[in-house]
Amino acid sequence: MALHTPRLIQQSPHLPFGDKQDASFYGKDILSVKQFSRGDLNFIFGIAQEMSEMVRRVGSFDLLKGKILANVFYEPSTRTSSSFTSAMERLGGSVIPINEVRYSSVSKGESLPDTIRTLEAYSDVIVLRHPEIGSAELAAKYARKPIINAGDGIGEHPTQALLDLFTIQQEMDRIDGLTITMVGDLKYGRTLHSLARLLTLYNVRLNYVSPDVLRMPGHILDEVNETSIPQAEYNSLDPVIGESDVLYVTRIQKERFSDENEYESVKNSFVISPETMQQAKEDMIVMHPLPRVGEISMDVDDDPRAAYFRQMEYGLYVRMALLAMVLGKA
Amino acid sequence: MALHTPRLIQQSPHLPFGDKQDASFYGKDILSVKQFSRGDLNFIFGIAQEMSEMVRRVGSFDLLKGKILANVFYEPSTRTSSSFTSAMERLGGSVIPINEVRYSSVSKGESLPDTIRTLEAYSDVIVLRHPEIGSAELAAKYARKPIINAGDGIGEHPTQALLDLFTIQQEMDRIDGLTITMVGDLKYGRTLHSLARLLTLYNVRLNYVSPDVLRMPGHILDEVNETSIPQAEYNSLDPVIGESDVLYVTRIQKERFSDENEYESVKNSFVISPETMQQAKEDMIVMHPLPRVGEISMDVDDDPRAAYFRQMEYGLYVRMALLAMVLGKA
Amino acid sequence: MALHTPRLIQQSPHLPFGDKQDASFYGKDILSVKQFSRGDLNFIFGIAQEMSEMVRRVGSFDLLKGKILANVFYEPSTRTSSSFTSAMERLGGSVIPINEVRYSSVSKGESLPDTIRTLEAYSDVIVLRHPEIGSAELAAKYARKPIINAGDGIGEHPTQALLDLFTIQQEMDRIDGLTITMVGDLKYGRTLHSLARLLTLYNVRLNYVSPDVLRMPGHILDEVNETSIPQAEYNSLDPVIGESDVLYVTRIQKERFSDENEYESVKNSFVISPETMQQAKEDMIVMHPLPRVGEISMDVDDDPRAAYFRQMEYGLYVRMALLAMVLGKA
Repeated sequence: MALHTPRLIQQSPHLPFGDKQDASFYGKDILSVKQFSRGDLNFIFGIAQEMSEMVRRVGSFDLLKGKILANVFYEPSTRTSSSFTSAMERLGGSVIPINEVRYSSVSKGESLPDTIRTLEAYSDVIVLRHPEIGSAELAAKYARKPIINAGDGIGEHPTQALLDLFTIQQEMDRIDGLTITMVGDLKYGRTLHSLARLLTLYNVRLNYVSPDVLRMPGHILDEVNETSIPQAEYNSLDPVIGESDVLYVTRIQKERFSDENEYESVKNSFVISPETMQQAKEDMIVMHPLPRVGEISMDVDDDPRAAYFRQMEYGLYVRMALLAMVLGKA
Repeated sequence: MALHTPRLIQQSPHLPFGDKQDASFYGKDILSVKQFSRGDLNFIFGIAQEMSEMVRRVGSFDLLKGKILANVFYEPSTRTSSSFTSAMERLGGSVIPINEVRYSSVSKGESLPDTIRTLEAYSDVIVLRHPEIGSAELAAKYARKPIINAGDGIGEHPTQALLDLFTIQQEMDRIDGLTITMVGDLKYGRTLHSLARLLTLYNVRLNYVSPDVLRMPGHILDEVNETSIPQAEYNSLDPVIGESDVLYVTRIQKERFSDENEYESVKNSFVISPETMQQAKEDMIVMHPLPRVGEISMDVDDDPRAAYFRQMEYGLYVRMALLAMVLGKA
Repeated sequence: MALHTPRLIQQSPHLPFGDKQDASFYGKDILSVKQFSRGDLNFIFGIAQEMSEMVRRVGSFDLLKGKILANVFYEPSTRTSSSFTSAMERLGGSVIPINEVRYSSVSKGESLPDTIRTLEAYSDVIVLRHPEIGSAELAAKYARKPIINAGDGIGEHPTQALLDLFTIQQEMDRIDGLTITMVGDLKYGRTLHSLARLLTLYNVRLNYVSPDVLRMPGHILDEVNETSIPQAEYNSLDPVIGESDVLYVTRIQKERFSDENEYESVKNSFVISPETMQQAKEDMIVMHPLPRVGEISMDVDDDPRAAYFRQMEYGLYVRMALLAMVLGKA
């Protein structure tokens, strides 16, 4: 399953991947984390690792030269949009940036399927960010070209979950055996729901730390319970900070609280500071999907365990891997 | 006149067009359908056909490598903007996307000629979409680089008319001898006015089907009358659906009617459904400039006669041809 | 110091610059005109001159192939943004256009350092336009990749000042010995403040012509006074138009006046017309940062002394030079 071939790269730096088409991803859509087996993840991460090495050695290369990505964002997301644009450009491909869909055909009432069928006439692969759940699946139903879901409302954001998992694997050199502690808004954090699902494919231990009103939803707890993964809920970091290998922090938004006093009373309990880090393992990593607004102190940034900016880079490599794979070049 | 050279392509797939410069288009502006003779159209469609074959065989190629397109949209049009971007990228060129003109220098009161003379310092060709009639001509008057009109208000949209005609030619394998029926809003449909003008260069028969308030304007009828092209007006599809070779459908907007009851009473008469298609010839094609909002039922989409999504692809090839031609590479 | 090597270009047109890295600019930020010595300017202008020759001869070339520019504009500026995009594309590099920062992560409250540290994961160099003074310096403090300041509020806009000076040097074939007259809004014109600073490195004479309320600020006059550069203030062009070698015109905005009558009474005194040009030297040049709104009559545009559109082109070459330099390819 693993195509992880550093040997091939060393022999022929300018043609690392050849024209082998992977039967399982060529021409396919990337819609949900549910579509991936553990073998698939190994395969993707092997390619992503090769991408990382190529970027380090040559910056960019022409694996997808002549291919065009339609980067379609119905709602703005500088981070995700830029990441896919960079991924395509580092692979020598081109991008059609489509950021103003809301002002244009769509405001004239065009359906998503019509928009997608138009854009696929101009491109080889479509990345779609859309505020409505199920939109990526709808697009994929009508498109002949591969669709990559870059977030469909409160639905899925599979490439974020993949890059989160790849970050853990690269930083810790393994996933099995780790204790992963999720902190903050576990109720609305789409990112964490998808990551928890993916982690059930591994032998990990999950801790959830949140205020009461922002606990992990029951249906996620149930899904995890169906596996043999141990999980436990907390409303303070203290009992688990010392045993955690990965601390995944998310933002707590004031708007989630009906009572502002309640927000004020809890918010500081979940801020990661240098003092928090003193209680943590020496090789723990801190992750965050960004943007952050105070939930990790900037004083933590220089701690080598702060992995959240490296996480952005891992995202680039995962998206390079996915683009190459669905276009049959990985 | 025709440069249609599949032989050359087969011998040398990476250098299909050579450096021959076409005397009639190199460095020229594309402003209006009125500038084209039938010979010009043959020439353009020959190049567009070659573009189609190259895209099918190699996806993209480096005919315009190093050339830069300034894609200047004073009003948003995802479809047209993306089509030109893709056309330039499939030819190996680069694009400067300029979608926010309204927020920027222009809002500081800069004149169109000044903006154009600035942008031509950065580019080799300028595509211009602007809400005011005559703007493309004004830009061309001041620019040293070629201007391609991508729509100037209720004025012209010549590349749309060219792609419409190219669609007919490619789908029907000829234009002479066809019966072309235009349906919907014939009064405000800039697209149809330009297409009707172009069609007077061929031996066709034109039918116009619309509600009374949206009839083809008198000046277009007069222009067609000056040729030997037969034309006839109808307020129902029934008498002409069976004899049509091409059915060109456009959207009827509620806002065009002063009386909403009148709108409600007519709108369904001009919707294309599977029942409509049962009355049509087996080799008729259905066209639409898109976006559509209900005037063609989605149930028609799988009918092989539904040509409106293929029409988008033909648009790509026509725009590739025009870019190559005005840059002296066709 | 000067790498000005036309000989090398003539011998090897496709590889003009080699891989020599300039110790003084490779990996550095471009934040302020204050960082440049006269030797630096010679060096930059030598590279810019080579860029000009390469563009004239081959249009574009692959000096920065595989490099990615994150073009980050927190406020719109079509002109500057397009100029950097073109510069990167003419050098064979790619661009991530980021124009909607205000709608996105930033509106979620993300700090500039976090945004920059994210974007540098996707790119090799960052161009930043931001409305707050000091923002470019702040970004540079956190970034590992080079930052080029494309305007930070009323702070600096160093690439504009460099292109202004390069324009003078190219058009007049020297800078020393020239009389440079600045006209219009000298109080708020960030461009002119930076240019005046740079000019103190040369043996020039400076004239300032403005209405009383828009005089050159005292701190700029003081800075110039610390050098041996003669400077003088006027409230009319008449005494100095005949002796000027360079006439640098800026816009007078009505909003700068508390009394509209005062605005009306002065505005026409500072408009450049064909009559103004009759009083000027035969080899004087007229410059303007654009956009203009009436302060230079369009009737002047065809005068060969009108250099303001050529100025845009010089800007392209200066920005190509800066990008190549900070990426170690000049």
